[in-house]
Amino acid sequence: MLPGVGVFGTGSTARVLVPLLRGEGFEVRALWGRSEEEARSLAQELGIPFHTSQSDDVLLHPDVDLVCIYISPPLTRQIAVKALGIGKNVVCEKAATAVDAFKMVTAARYYPQLLSIVGNALRFLPAFVAMRQLLAEGYVGELQVCDARVYGPSLLDQSYGWTCEELMGGGGLHTVGSTLVDLLSHLTGARAIRVHGLLRTFVRQNGAIRGIRRVTSDDFCFFQMLMGGSGSGRGTGSGVCCTVTLNFNMPGAFVHEVMVVGSAGRLIARGTELYGQRNGGNREELLLGDSGGTGQEVKDVPLPHLRGLGSMVKALKDAFQAQEERRSWARGPVAMASTFEDGLYVQTVVEAVKRSSHSGEWESVEVMTQEPDPNQNL
Amino acid sequence: MLPGVGVFGTGSTARVLVPLLRGEGFEVRALWGRSEEEARSLAQELGIPFHTSQSDDVLLHPDVDLVCIYISPPLTRQIAVKALGIGKNVVCEKAATAVDAFKMVTAARYYPQLLSIVGNALRFLPAFVAMRQLLAEGYVGELQVCDARVYGPSLLDQSYGWTCEELMGGGGLHTVGSTLVDLLSHLTGARAIRVHGLLRTFVRQNGAIRGIRRVTSDDFCFFQMLMGGSGSGRGTGSGVCCTVTLNFNMPGAFVHEVMVVGSAGRLIARGTELYGQRNGGNREELLLGDSGGTGQEVKDVPLPHLRGLGSMVKALKDAFQAQEERRSWARGPVAMASTFEDGLYVQTVVEAVKRSSHSGEWESVEVMTQEPDPNQNL
Repeated sequence: MLPGVGVFGTGSTARVLVPLLRGEGFEVRALWGRSEEEARSLAQELGIPFHTSQSDDVLLHPDVDLVCIYISPPLTRQIAVKALGIGKNVVCEKAATAVDAFKMVTAARYYPQLLSIVGNALRFLPAFVAMRQLLAEGYVGELQVCDARVYGPSLLDQSYGWTCEELMGGGGLHTVGSTLVDLLSHLTGARAIRVHGLLRTFVRQNGAIRGIRRVTSDDFCFFQMLMGGSGSGRGTGSGVCCTVTLNFNMPGAFVHEVMVVGSAGRLIARGTELYGQRNGGNREELLLGDSGGTGQEVKDVPLPHLRGLGSMVKALKDAFQAQEERRSWARGPVAMASTFEDGLYVQTVVEAVKRSSHSGEWESVEVMTQEPDPNQNL
Repeated sequence: MLPGVGVFGTGSTARVLVPLLRGEGFEVRALWGRSEEEARSLAQELGIPFHTSQSDDVLLHPDVDLVCIYISPPLTRQIAVKALGIGKNVVCEKAATAVDAFKMVTAARYYPQLLSIVGNALRFLPAFVAMRQLLAEGYVGELQVCDARVYGPSLLDQSYGWTCEELMGGGGLHTVGSTLVDLLSHLTGARAIRVHGLLRTFVRQNGAIRGIRRVTSDDFCFFQMLMGGSGSGRGTGSGVCCTVTLNFNMPGAFVHEVMVVGSAGRLIARGTELYGQRNGGNREELLLGDSGGTGQEVKDVPLPHLRGLGSMVKALKDAFQAQEERRSWARGPVAMASTFEDGLYVQTVVEAVKRSSHSGEWESVEVMTQEPDPNQNL
């Protein structure tokens, strides 16, 4: 039985998520927006019966059993943790800091019977599902190098807000880089042990952000990860070098490319399509085309994320639909999802890359095992 | 009047160079090979009237006024310096070390009336000539980021030799990375002040290299350059970040891509073609197609190098042909060539990247101004 859904957020992802959920048979019962006006406007547009700017109104809504949180990073932790405490299943975006991510992990551990996933849709994109499968089957031989690049137009909102602020989770590294950190760990079955990075903010002001306000979030980012011990138990990726290049000063472009190179061949996901070449082969072959699938290309939601989101919503349906209880779910269909533990790892890598950009040195990735004492400075 | 040419080397570059020289009207008078047999074999194949394995036989040959040196890096310095001392014009490949490059600079300064250029053919490739021109005209606005990538099959020779040895100038960084270091400095008008890099040798042994022998040269390399003060006086590139990714574990592939991104647009050279997009434009435009031009695609000589070599030989013809003396030349046509001073800068960057890969830290690029005391260890 499919649970009723409450959606947090009125941005572009929330806007595409609602029709995807409905397409799979979910009922979207409630919408939360930062302001009453934003909530009302999108609820009317999408025909959602209830809207509010009070988070409790959604969390305590009797018809809401699954909460999807697609809001600014600094608000995510609070709502996700509260939702779990109230007994609701949670799909959410990343948090703003490792400390927030740690608090989310603590909550998820406390309620293991509830679904708690970080909605990195790339893991569900069929091209990456196939890439992971082929890696496990040895298509590329011994994995050596992963190289990911995303180029696109500015990530800044029209008006000044969290997207402009590094400390609020804005910037290419936090917004897009984190999805790649998660994906590369998922693909290789390994985790970064050391990272080196360089962040830049080339565009500090623009037509909308001026005066005393300046953008502090990165629009160019470049980092390397040396992968070590296993993250998921497969561990084929130990010793692999990953390089990631992000550039969001490219209006009109959208490039999303992930390449894995090994001793026997290589696999390349370009956008939503997967290509491969074995060392003996005389040309690259298309291994998986774009299926079209659910959803149209939407402004501000790149196609790989949109398609991935569609597949993730399908997986959610599969997880819930055979259950008798509205809040019960099967683990199998969402086993490949990013857990809150993965979210903490990703946030730790993001912060290590930022540290490296300041220090100029390789920084170790050490995942928090205990919450830092909030009174440590007293 | 075109000078007679002596060619050093029997490798793939020497093999394509000879017909290119003849195509422009140069007479190739003499060929040097490492062994008598190698020299005889290629001289017969190409119909060169004189061959030898004694370098003096070419350098002192009365009909040779221009010497083209395309041999293993450790031998380059000795022959280039000697050729200048004998009064011959020199086009050569890079040296093996910064100390060697410094000795070549000293010789070039001592004989300023002789031509002395490092034959980095990429500078002459029409796509890069046009890219440099467009950068100067402000096509991309304020330059922010350069991103170069070269992927291809193994650079190792069939048998064990200098290509396998890091200290002899083998490896992707030294062989290919150096041409990009030179090109990026030429394009931006700036020089690297700090670099960070990572080198890997994934393939340490193969069918031909086995037993106790191991490859020490890199087959994967990844480095960043922060550009500072002007190298050529134009200085538009100060503050620019350059990233370079080299991967030579990709049999069957050849990718050669150089992208420059600025505040107003971007330019991308893919292989021998130049594309551009201004920020307002709704799609990428082809700015310069591949002209076909001289030479066919040849094994082991990537098309951008082959086409660039063709353009460089044309420039050499233009430099020499209007002169009455066989050894005189006009500076204009070869003004864009890489000088021995540029060669020293490039070698300095290459060594700084290697240091960085060992230290894990950003390393400064400090170009030698004095030859290190050879007795410093006594």
